[in-house]
Amino acid sequence: MPEKESFIVTPYEVRGRIDYERLRKQFGTQELSGPVLEELREAAGGTLHPLIERGVYYSHRDLGVLLAQYRKGERFFLYSGRGPSGPLHLSHLVSFELCRWLQEKFDAPMYIQITDDEKFWARSQLTREDSIRWGYENLLDILAVGFDRKRTHVFFDSRSIAAMYPLAVRVARKIPYSTVKAVFGFAPSTNIGLVFYTALQTVPALYPSWESGRSVPCLIPCGIDQDPHFRVTRDIAESLGYPKPALIHSQMIPGLLGEGVMSTTGGNAADNALFLNDPPKTVERKIRKAFTGGRASVEEQRRLGATPEICSVWALWRTRFAENDGKFEQVTRDCRSGALLCGDCKGELIERVQAFYTTHQAARERARDHAEELIITQPPKPEGWDRKPSTSREGSPSPSLYR
Amino acid sequence: MPEKESFIVTPYEVRGRIDYERLRKQFGTQELSGPVLEELREAAGGTLHPLIERGVYYSHRDLGVLLAQYRKGERFFLYSGRGPSGPLHLSHLVSFELCRWLQEKFDAPMYIQITDDEKFWARSQLTREDSIRWGYENLLDILAVGFDRKRTHVFFDSRSIAAMYPLAVRVARKIPYSTVKAVFGFAPSTNIGLVFYTALQTVPALYPSWESGRSVPCLIPCGIDQDPHFRVTRDIAESLGYPKPALIHSQMIPGLLGEGVMSTTGGNAADNALFLNDPPKTVERKIRKAFTGGRASVEEQRRLGATPEICSVWALWRTRFAENDGKFEQVTRDCRSGALLCGDCKGELIERVQAFYTTHQAARERARDHAEELIITQPPKPEGWDRKPSTSREGSPSPSLYR
Repeated sequence: MPEKESFIVTPYEVRGRIDYERLRKQFGTQELSGPVLEELREAAGGTLHPLIERGVYYSHRDLGVLLAQYRKGERFFLYSGRGPSGPLHLSHLVSFELCRWLQEKFDAPMYIQITDDEKFWARSQLTREDSIRWGYENLLDILAVGFDRKRTHVFFDSRSIAAMYPLAVRVARKIPYSTVKAVFGFAPSTNIGLVFYTALQTVPALYPSWESGRSVPCLIPCGIDQDPHFRVTRDIAESLGYPKPALIHSQMIPGLLGEGVMSTTGGNAADNALFLNDPPKTVERKIRKAFTGGRASVEEQRRLGATPEICSVWALWRTRFAENDGKFEQVTRDCRSGALLCGDCKGELIERVQAFYTTHQAARERARDHAEELIITQPPKPEGWDRKPSTSREGSPSPSLYR
Repeated sequence: MPEKESFIVTPYEVRGRIDYERLRKQFGTQELSGPVLEELREAAGGTLHPLIERGVYYSHRDLGVLLAQYRKGERFFLYSGRGPSGPLHLSHLVSFELCRWLQEKFDAPMYIQITDDEKFWARSQLTREDSIRWGYENLLDILAVGFDRKRTHVFFDSRSIAAMYPLAVRVARKIPYSTVKAVFGFAPSTNIGLVFYTALQTVPALYPSWESGRSVPCLIPCGIDQDPHFRVTRDIAESLGYPKPALIHSQMIPGLLGEGVMSTTGGNAADNALFLNDPPKTVERKIRKAFTGGRASVEEQRRLGATPEICSVWALWRTRFAENDGKFEQVTRDCRSGALLCGDCKGELIERVQAFYTTHQAARERARDHAEELIITQPPKPEGWDRKPSTSREGSPSPSLYR
């Protein structure tokens, strides 16, 4: 048996050419197909989001359980997040686009986490100031996706820590170092902030249950690379008396250079990703240079057609720039048949990306007015003076001295 | 060479019969004697606290450096703390008594840390509620020592986290897992909260410098068992632009049963320590049962005298119940000569402890009125919207999009 191509996917490293199906099996998640998709479609009122229809979302954990609860009247909330190490790129919107759709279809509260602490711990070149500044900038881009602000809440880690910490303290006691070492591949040189951090990524998944004192189901749309964090969450949730969150996982958008995935960091990040703050000329230049599934010559492409599955430009049509299934099928068909040449395809896509950026950037500026008020800063339950020790020492009853 | 008696001293475990001089050499601290003691006496206006005179404080790090800075006009602040796993016992007051004296002599601000998170992480039997409740109860006992409330501040970890976290995030990035593993002897099963925790114990030592933007020297009076935390602090302080804290270390009060030290936890804790909430009859019973350096019979003791150095009762005279040097020398001399019998010695001590408890418990109730306002809850510098990323991605200049 030939050796399989190797790849690594963790929240802190994505390397190699990802075989998503193999990754899914390796992570032990369920395939997003068949009955559960139909249940989702029915619960959502008869439609599915294009990111699901087109297979960008391809994996899940316990989505069927969540939908069964929903049918019985148990409402769920949504949770997704962002580690701010630089501007957002198009791949980052994949989670939030689906969250927005789910919020609308299921009338679901949305919790957004901005992990400015995590990124500072994970990236030794990132200054503390920039991890915070990017946190605010990224939050505006996320809100621009169009959440219902009355049902949207933000955990901005360093700003929200007073609210998050009481629960994080309880979570952290449940997680031994050996678990994070195994799950994230930490080394002895890993700093103790990053070792602790997964406790904070667990908090939003349990917070509404903790806050309300009842079991509130949670659905987390995220890139499959984030699954390890939530495996930890799922392992410990019930021991704290909270339900395990369900997940729905997406593939990542492939890099424009045909290497790896769009990423904020790394040597070729600048040309490999379309950042949401790229000016129009940069968008044009990057897409013009992008790796495609085209042939060596126009003549050959007309005759043999191109290969959309390996094309970074087709991946963009698939993800968000084909406005409906008709358009997506047309692009795919014409690419494959040779009717559509890469230059023309890129030209049309460039216009669409630029137009989207104009709309998006206006929306992000409008979000500036209300973003601050969405940030949770106070704990729901003060843990204060009103409480007295239940024992006079561990295990013995309290004397009257403590009134 | 015969094998030396073995003992273990870390912030999380104290085991065996401690050879304090050997421990000092093992930790690499300096002896508190000779010129540095005279410098301290002079700076304090010609006197030394009995805990220093009697050798309970016996070790330091950089106290000479701190005093040299003081002579040049650089004021320092004091920092000590408590991990609340149960009621305070007499040994816990050793740090705070010295802090109070230093505050008075040096007009120094005092920072008290209550580590309710740490104790919850360190003790699997302790409930979260009790770690918080004991935190409040312990704080009252600490304040009862008599600090100047205008210059006294409290970090109650889970209440003060919004203030502490911004600095803790910076500290944590400097500390690799390998360091805490080596310093504290952590195992793979150690939870990630405790792994992270030392970052929070570092925060108060650097906070006044961080808050003010200038270098503020720090002096930490603490039990020698806490030195490992501050070794970590001292290792990283300068890399963050802050001065290394100086330390002054005490021995721990030996257990009443003649085993180990007074401790809040452990199988024999109830009888081994004098808790500050012990009722008068309990005080009497514990001291009556206490291990002494006495002889097998009255006759033998009259003839040969007793051995104060191994006596748990003498340790209490030494620590706080001999009101001056004359009394302490008298007790020591009469014990050694056989003039003072253990029963009489204990009788006198019981009265003094009971009287002290009455005064102390009244003071702790008075502290209830102002304790809350000493707790720091807000960060000094909001890290907010006013800041913009310095780059458009890591390493490249910011475009005009970010106004």
